Amino acid sequence: MKKIINNPDNVVEEMLNGMVASHPEYLERLEGFDVVTRKNKKSDKVTLVSGGGSGHEPAHGGFVGKGMLDAAVAGAVFTSPTPDQVYEAIKAVDNGKGVLLVIKNYSGDVMNFDMAAEMAEADGIKVEKVVTNDDVAVENSTWTIGRRGIAGTILVHKIAGAKAEAGASLEDVKAVAEKVIANSRSMGMALSPCTVPAAGKPSFTLADDEMEIGMGIHGEPGTHRESITTADEITQQLLDKIFAEDIYHSGDEVAVLINGLGATPLMELYVVSGKVQTVLQEKGIKIAKTYVGNYMTSLEMAGCSISLLKLDAELKELLAAPADTPALVQF
Amino acid sequence: MKKIINNPDNVVEEMLNGMVASHPEYLERLEGFDVVTRKNKKSDKVTLVSGGGSGHEPAHGGFVGKGMLDAAVAGAVFTSPTPDQVYEAIKAVDNGKGVLLVIKNYSGDVMNFDMAAEMAEADGIKVEKVVTNDDVAVENSTWTIGRRGIAGTILVHKIAGAKAEAGASLEDVKAVAEKVIANSRSMGMALSPCTVPAAGKPSFTLADDEMEIGMGIHGEPGTHRESITTADEITQQLLDKIFAEDIYHSGDEVAVLINGLGATPLMELYVVSGKVQTVLQEKGIKIAKTYVGNYMTSLEMAGCSISLLKLDAELKELLAAPADTPALVQF
Repeated sequence: MKKIINNPDNVVEEMLNGMVASHPEYLERLEGFDVVTRKNKKSDKVTLVSGGGSGHEPAHGGFVGKGMLDAAVAGAVFTSPTPDQVYEAIKAVDNGKGVLLVIKNYSGDVMNFDMAAEMAEADGIKVEKVVTNDDVAVENSTWTIGRRGIAGTILVHKIAGAKAEAGASLEDVKAVAEKVIANSRSMGMALSPCTVPAAGKPSFTLADDEMEIGMGIHGEPGTHRESITTADEITQQLLDKIFAEDIYHSGDEVAVLINGLGATPLMELYVVSGKVQTVLQEKGIKIAKTYVGNYMTSLEMAGCSISLLKLDAELKELLAAPADTPALVQF
Repeated sequence: MKKIINNPDNVVEEMLNGMVASHPEYLERLEGFDVVTRKNKKSDKVTLVSGGGSGHEPAHGGFVGKGMLDAAVAGAVFTSPTPDQVYEAIKAVDNGKGVLLVIKNYSGDVMNFDMAAEMAEADGIKVEKVVTNDDVAVENSTWTIGRRGIAGTILVHKIAGAKAEAGASLEDVKAVAEKVIANSRSMGMALSPCTVPAAGKPSFTLADDEMEIGMGIHGEPGTHRESITTADEITQQLLDKIFAEDIYHSGDEVAVLINGLGATPLMELYVVSGKVQTVLQEKGIKIAKTYVGNYMTSLEMAGCSISLLKLDAELKELLAAPADTPALVQF
């Protein structure tokens, strides 16, 4: 294992400290907890809390800021945060307008965020939850009942965050988050595994000419392995699986997210993105906006995922609303 | 070699098409050339052209847009663009106010951008040049006389771009670029090599427990190799080399750029950034702004560089000016 770290046992703590020290204009650390909160809180809006295991950076701490999240809770690498951590994040950001929890669909996350919500509700805090499940690869995998939540989650952060920033009620913020979840699907592939620092060895192995289709962001098995082929064929295969969902049709307008899993050069992501544009154009689907980069990573895994979000007027407007967070790499 | 590409011979072409198709609101392709230009050109400003070999994405095409570059020229992977390509970029963006070329110090780049400048000047276009050389690792390496230009180049793009956007003259834009170059230094390290697509095999090898200190962004040799150690010790070693330049002193204010080389998780970059904050604080150096992410990559190389820029009031104001380009990952 080659990593630029000090001690696997402290890596999340040191990362959070580094993140907050690097972006003091955006972030604060919630004293005593693995939680980062928005620096300049607005007191008159619904607040959003997300999080999950670490190792997916910039998700989720990098998306804390204006127009997106109010707090992110960081578990150990690839491990759900405990209920008390989530509970503290909820208490830290609530201002009486209510809190929406954005949870990726992993059994541990769902259970622990649920418990935290109950604890907060016992304190009289209004809490609602949405569970993202955009990954069409497999149902009921290693740590999940149903579909997994992956990169499409970032689109929920963005759109629900914009709705909250605009002053909407908790019910309306939840409703738009649910609409994003209903309209978004993702599919990924990997060329190489990643190594959890505390484990010290790769989570699985792939042969030199092999790729895995549909792998999860913690290295969970995908649909199958096959010999690596061209970017065009890989892209077509991922899109075919997404199109099998029967959501995206000729005449629709979509947003596209080409997400790198950590070690894939932007050059390759742009080759994939170019093919996505071509395929969607051929299908008569209009692209309103494309995002290309590392949004939801899996440590140093090589590979990518493609997410589509079908837009209506409301979603399109909220997607375009201003946001300002560390992961948007503002100069 | 495992890459998500179609054909090594077409990868730059396909990347540029993908980049422009992904970000039509920002970028245009200069028909027939490996050049991307700013979509909504301002006609009353000095224009900036940069570029170099491909494989460093988002540099440089990702920094084309408001407040940064007006065009980026993309050579083959790790290969200087030819003079005619640079010449066409200059012609495409010039509006009579003059063009500043921002060149990373590699002999091929310097020669080819020089020739392009002469061709443009013969057409009556005002052209000035600056050459970035922020890498303190080594003098006179594989493809360079003097120091190499690496991630600090992005700070030149940002600050000179802001100066141009504000309406300054060509002389003043060049002067502020020179000030950034004089005040910025970088130092990097690598844990793993990268593979040029057309070569198909890694550019060098490192043992499983080895790292290279001071390696260039094309895999050029650094100062030495040694056994991998902690993030804190690596960071201290990189900073010590930068501090040996006698530029950064107690009482100074700086900007910090923690740059990932392609395959290093953001988690690790934040661990490094946390240590940088601590060391600078101990030295009495104030940090005005920290950037953490993949700005100037080396394909899928694992590793990072640290850049410092000493600020004065002008540089600080220009660094903070608004910019809007694809690599700033605007939502």
